[in-house]
Amino acid sequence: MYRVDLNSDIGESYGVYKLGMDKEVIKYITSANIACGWHAGDPIVMEQTVKAAAENNVAIGVHPGFPDLIGFGRRNMMITAEEAKAYTTYQIGALWAFAKARGVEVQHVKPHGALYNMAAKDPVLAGAIVEAICQVDKNMILVGLANSKLTEAGEEKGLKVAHEVFADRAYNPDGSLVSRSTPGAVIHDTDMAVERVIRMVKEGKVEAITGEDVEIKAHTICVHGDNQHALDFVNKIRKALLKEAIGVESMKNFI
Amino acid sequence: MYRVDLNSDIGESYGVYKLGMDKEVIKYITSANIACGWHAGDPIVMEQTVKAAAENNVAIGVHPGFPDLIGFGRRNMMITAEEAKAYTTYQIGALWAFAKARGVEVQHVKPHGALYNMAAKDPVLAGAIVEAICQVDKNMILVGLANSKLTEAGEEKGLKVAHEVFADRAYNPDGSLVSRSTPGAVIHDTDMAVERVIRMVKEGKVEAITGEDVEIKAHTICVHGDNQHALDFVNKIRKALLKEAIGVESMKNFI
Amino acid sequence: MYRVDLNSDIGESYGVYKLGMDKEVIKYITSANIACGWHAGDPIVMEQTVKAAAENNVAIGVHPGFPDLIGFGRRNMMITAEEAKAYTTYQIGALWAFAKARGVEVQHVKPHGALYNMAAKDPVLAGAIVEAICQVDKNMILVGLANSKLTEAGEEKGLKVAHEVFADRAYNPDGSLVSRSTPGAVIHDTDMAVERVIRMVKEGKVEAITGEDVEIKAHTICVHGDNQHALDFVNKIRKALLKEAIGVESMKNFI
Amino acid sequence: MYRVDLNSDIGESYGVYKLGMDKEVIKYITSANIACGWHAGDPIVMEQTVKAAAENNVAIGVHPGFPDLIGFGRRNMMITAEEAKAYTTYQIGALWAFAKARGVEVQHVKPHGALYNMAAKDPVLAGAIVEAICQVDKNMILVGLANSKLTEAGEEKGLKVAHEVFADRAYNPDGSLVSRSTPGAVIHDTDMAVERVIRMVKEGKVEAITGEDVEIKAHTICVHGDNQHALDFVNKIRKALLKEAIGVESMKNFI
Repeated sequence: MYRVDLNSDIGESYGVYKLGMDKEVIKYITSANIACGWHAGDPIVMEQTVKAAAENNVAIGVHPGFPDLIGFGRRNMMITAEEAKAYTTYQIGALWAFAKARGVEVQHVKPHGALYNMAAKDPVLAGAIVEAICQVDKNMILVGLANSKLTEAGEEKGLKVAHEVFADRAYNPDGSLVSRSTPGAVIHDTDMAVERVIRMVKEGKVEAITGEDVEIKAHTICVHGDNQHALDFVNKIRKALLKEAIGVESMKNFI
Repeated sequence: MYRVDLNSDIGESYGVYKLGMDKEVIKYITSANIACGWHAGDPIVMEQTVKAAAENNVAIGVHPGFPDLIGFGRRNMMITAEEAKAYTTYQIGALWAFAKARGVEVQHVKPHGALYNMAAKDPVLAGAIVEAICQVDKNMILVGLANSKLTEAGEEKGLKVAHEVFADRAYNPDGSLVSRSTPGAVIHDTDMAVERVIRMVKEGKVEAITGEDVEIKAHTICVHGDNQHALDFVNKIRKALLKEAIGVESMKNFI
Repeated sequence: MYRVDLNSDIGESYGVYKLGMDKEVIKYITSANIACGWHAGDPIVMEQTVKAAAENNVAIGVHPGFPDLIGFGRRNMMITAEEAKAYTTYQIGALWAFAKARGVEVQHVKPHGALYNMAAKDPVLAGAIVEAICQVDKNMILVGLANSKLTEAGEEKGLKVAHEVFADRAYNPDGSLVSRSTPGAVIHDTDMAVERVIRMVKEGKVEAITGEDVEIKAHTICVHGDNQHALDFVNKIRKALLKEAIGVESMKNFI
Repeated sequence: MYRVDLNSDIGESYGVYKLGMDKEVIKYITSANIACGWHAGDPIVMEQTVKAAAENNVAIGVHPGFPDLIGFGRRNMMITAEEAKAYTTYQIGALWAFAKARGVEVQHVKPHGALYNMAAKDPVLAGAIVEAICQVDKNMILVGLANSKLTEAGEEKGLKVAHEVFADRAYNPDGSLVSRSTPGAVIHDTDMAVERVIRMVKEGKVEAITGEDVEIKAHTICVHGDNQHALDFVNKIRKALLKEAIGVESMKNFI
């Protein structure tokens, strides 16, 4: 039986600032990436988000980001490997405490934004993130871009690794994402997006932007809850997966 | 046999900014209060401080403070109980991760600066801090001003509580500290300070500024490593305690 | 002829976080209090807000707040007078630069949130804010709660001072605001709120919660643009003022 | 008559954290680059630093940096041109207010650390910084690495530009600095460093690491006040310049 996880970034509000439709999207997903106060989120938001995830039977994960609230962690920062390791360790701990207080486990660690993108390409940065997880808790699953330096670094160190795929993004022949600045990078046809995801899960393949097939593992699909349109897409993808008899479950069940 | 702990705030450097003579004071103390990046400290500093403590066989504790780096956590902030609880939880987790990575345990939690002083007087704030510890890990010892609302709140909830005393501070008849703005609040005669501490440990009493005796538990003595003068005093107090056959040990051994 | 100013806090967005219906409320007001990045706002938002104000012929003012983004500047912080003066100076300068770049003048300074409320009662804090304005530019108008220590401090130093009133808040017999925690503190009947404002402007009087009349200067009325309901109220108040032949103008025209 | 300016980064302390020997180095320099609270410095420090500069007859300048206190503004951040312009504008304003309060003028703007280095190579980033200065006050002098994209951008827009040279750094044949990671990048022989500076000022030439001469304008020399060794070097260079009858003056006198 095929199984796949649906993950989404939530808990990105900060103080009086509200972001995302967390209460809605949490009904559809199986894993939540929770911001830890560096690029988004604050302790009150973290506590409430862990609570909401627990109530909705959604597994939680650390979503460590750069120390860049003003830029939402989306801007590349040239930090050292030592810094990346320490920053990841810190943010893992912060979420762990809220999980412990609520009596739930931290399932995974998925770097956020620019940290995620940089680690997908930079083996040194990837290695630092992996080392942080290994030292704090080897049972936590590393979530990284499928076929990236980050998943590679996790596998080398013997971590449990979840390969993440994007329903609405085009892929290069080497399995990397086509840059957003390239025409065709984003797939706007939701039917096609759903079909691609199903094929990734069932066949482990996706058609690259160049037309050839690329091998890809689809352990978890990244979805969004920013607006109603995004929510509708999550619902659509979830229904399509279930219709194909693909189990939609938290990644800890099968990684 | 009498036993007492010597604690000091360390790990207060931040980025390029260096503060305190951590490498020296860590040789004399038995418990280290480690800043968690809110009023001082950063992840790199936390990692190095936990390492140094482990190498010197010094027990570590969380030193949560207000989100006020510019004011070093020394300025009163009117936060809610919910915020206090979430901020404490967050900072406990942050240090826990570095301890876990190093293979050591978090022994205690001692609020910093204005948070410590406010919680000593405000039962609501004290209760929020206690609740955070209870929910994350009941084995962590709460360190608070002796005879304060903070120690009281911890004892009510069944936490392990360490009463902290100050060698160089005068006490009021109710066991509270004489405000620094009052003449005679600070004891500059180090011999007298040492004598007072020994009496607190052995007899559980200290002479208040008004001349009468006050009952006080002296589980841990707060010492400083800011400068050579402070270091000399720590050394002196340690030697005097040992000469009196008072065991100088981490609080976890006897709390 | 009677004249009054309508002021509102705008430019409170931060990075990806959007707050307030700035584009709507700016059509109704005559003065904008612009956040300067401490409790809200960021440089990009400041630039855009100054631009929007200039385009709508709305005068701009500095809205200095505590260094507390996570608490939106609404939490009391015990800062020194020296700190209050320096923090105000800093934030005045930050807004000044965007005004200068756009070719407009900074009309006023209105402290935000907890800083505003504390300065209304604390003459030392009030004096520090006043001193900052005096030293940077004596032409800037100080906006403070009518009948408060802040307006008093400004008048003593010879600053131009605008007394601010609230349409929807009850007043004590001494002219101070009834605390929000007291029943009847907020006036929900918008017709009554409008009537009260008109009387404040025309007669310089408002009925206190105790039934007696209080003398009050109403140079500027605080309005909000948080939601459609608030916008409707601004529109209503503006129309009522115009109907009464009260000029709705930027305070610089009559202070 | 030859003239040159000596500039140094000061005002880099933050809250309880002290950095640099500002009180000493300020006696030797003619221009001070003052941190504005983003990568270092706080409003209290800014006020005190402007005061100290005024008392020592040292001209002041804005030292804008990345929003990265934890990294001291030394880490590259991929910000947009719009952000760079707004961040520079903000920091110019912040310093301007303290200068205005003290009755002195802001002489120059010199980007800090990673922002300086990136702007030296990136014409888009350089252009954004230049645009900020142009819009706020065209009388402020732009200080940039000699022969860089930053000085080039300033000159193109008609700004007053000061070319900055380094006494202790080797140069490439194209006039750029040899990267610190390259052997020979730093000149440790202080006599040679002084000789090179004098030649740069008098002849407008420096010998590149490859042996050939490079044309270079030396309007201002970057010196440091981090420690006694650095101070001694500043003193040495100052004496040598005066001995050669080179006027050591604030750049505003000759730019």
